Amino acid sequence: MDAKDEPWTGPTVGELGELVVLDRVTSRLPQGSPLVGPGDDCAVVAAPDGRFVVTTDMMVHGPDFRWAWSSPSDVGWKAAATNLSDVAAMGAVPSGLVVAIAAPQDTPVAVLEGIADGFRLAVDALAPGCGVVGGDLSTSSAFTVAVTAFGDLQDRAPVLRSGARVGDVLAVSGELGRAARGLARLFRSGVDAHGEPSRAAVVATGLDEDPDVGRQRRPVPPIADGPLAAAAGATAMLDLSDGLAIDAGRLARSSRVTLEISAALDDVALHGGEDHGLLATFPADAVLPGGFRRIGVVLERGAADLVRDGVGVPTTGWDPYADWDGVAG
Amino acid sequence: MDAKDEPWTGPTVGELGELVVLDRVTSRLPQGSPLVGPGDDCAVVAAPDGRFVVTTDMMVHGPDFRWAWSSPSDVGWKAAATNLSDVAAMGAVPSGLVVAIAAPQDTPVAVLEGIADGFRLAVDALAPGCGVVGGDLSTSSAFTVAVTAFGDLQDRAPVLRSGARVGDVLAVSGELGRAARGLARLFRSGVDAHGEPSRAAVVATGLDEDPDVGRQRRPVPPIADGPLAAAAGATAMLDLSDGLAIDAGRLARSSRVTLEISAALDDVALHGGEDHGLLATFPADAVLPGGFRRIGVVLERGAADLVRDGVGVPTTGWDPYADWDGVAG
Repeated sequence: MDAKDEPWTGPTVGELGELVVLDRVTSRLPQGSPLVGPGDDCAVVAAPDGRFVVTTDMMVHGPDFRWAWSSPSDVGWKAAATNLSDVAAMGAVPSGLVVAIAAPQDTPVAVLEGIADGFRLAVDALAPGCGVVGGDLSTSSAFTVAVTAFGDLQDRAPVLRSGARVGDVLAVSGELGRAARGLARLFRSGVDAHGEPSRAAVVATGLDEDPDVGRQRRPVPPIADGPLAAAAGATAMLDLSDGLAIDAGRLARSSRVTLEISAALDDVALHGGEDHGLLATFPADAVLPGGFRRIGVVLERGAADLVRDGVGVPTTGWDPYADWDGVAG
Repeated sequence: MDAKDEPWTGPTVGELGELVVLDRVTSRLPQGSPLVGPGDDCAVVAAPDGRFVVTTDMMVHGPDFRWAWSSPSDVGWKAAATNLSDVAAMGAVPSGLVVAIAAPQDTPVAVLEGIADGFRLAVDALAPGCGVVGGDLSTSSAFTVAVTAFGDLQDRAPVLRSGARVGDVLAVSGELGRAARGLARLFRSGVDAHGEPSRAAVVATGLDEDPDVGRQRRPVPPIADGPLAAAAGATAMLDLSDGLAIDAGRLARSSRVTLEISAALDDVALHGGEDHGLLATFPADAVLPGGFRRIGVVLERGAADLVRDGVGVPTTGWDPYADWDGVAG
């Protein structure tokens, strides 16, 4: 049996009951150091500078992930990473997560343990010291993971989308296009004869070894670069969730500017989603921190949100279904 | 057409698209006064004393609510009220909510607007000044509402479940047993010939006018009594979600004491769930604040968590299915 399939055996949530499941899952989660942890009506989290940032995101089986393509640990990792990335995009340091999961009664407990492992691995890798401080476990016909993440601004102003100024440098941190390439490969080769996601097809075509598929399953957002950007004077910043072009359009409209791209970026880098890098603007004389590199400049607002070589770039996403012949597989 | 059915007509989420739906829903939500509101990667919320309390809870259609029994506004109200109650049970004042909703694509937008109305009405009634500071909208085959709520301890220590001391007074705020009575009536009379929840049966049997059914749909937790209890020196407190006996058992075990009930309380008051009142212990000489009234005393830990007239009371819930003959209706 493939290691990826192992969680799908053993006693189920319905067989063991909520209390036993909670015990087994909670012990695998990253603990962090909340002032009051799980087990009371609320957790208590420190907010040293008198504020906290908060973001929430829900992942549902089907539209947001497929068990045929992602292991439980992958799903936990991605749920943690995408929320931590939103915290970083404000310039904040992650200070805690709460996680609500709704699972079918016949879900093996090992699946929930795998998700907890993914949360722990992601937090250890991306935001060490942060922890899951509270949660909820429910029943649903659709497997659902809802995460709310918090962060500490460390006495700095939050970096909003609206602060870019004409003459600022446009910069990005994190790899571009890899998650989208991985998803495209899953759509093309990770499906059965009916075009449905298939674990067997993933194994047969070696997609588990594809590094871009790995980035789709387990994004590695540059969390530490968020606070570094804030400290370096970033004037605007956001998380790249829907693709550089779409997200740059959001930043441009919020800041009432036009962004000019000068770097050589291919279509997938420009339009592929789920990279979870950081797009930011900095004063022209700023030293770009961490993994940030210059990709363009901020112009006065013109007809387009985004231009390259004087021509408007569509602020749209890249459709991973485009080269996928669903039914024919 | 009954007013309760109106949200189930009109354009759907899939027809209007996420952006239009978000616009229409967001404008109906309680706004509060966050430092940074919705629209960026994160909201920013004040935490004046350098800490915040946080709780999360997920409600799923089927196990947690039924459209045949609750309007969208009822569901929004209850999602807000139950989370606000957890915040109050720490002695904190609610400072914000984030809400993630996953809805089938064919859900009329009016249903989401109704949920937003319920959030606004509940917050206005129970925690004025609090607001929904962020959210997420997804697609799912199972209608799901996940809420995370925050609160401010106002420089007081959080009131945990573990602080009850021998000799303390045991007190409760909020009505007992009404939500459970309402649910029992819905199970008994709000069903069709196959025992399935039925809007027509609810209308035919006048359950919309039943005040206990109203409490089941729209609990009215005594939110303001949470901070009042903390200020009055409460030594332990929790939210009554699963029934007084179960929840008293939790407080007793956490505090390593036995609780003696002296008040005359019937079985539904003792064992009925979803009241969302507050159970607290106070020093013997404390003046009980707000709606709190004495129902017993804290004893040294004995063989039982909970006793009455020297006899152990089972710390179990009350089963609303008990007198419900499902299939026969």
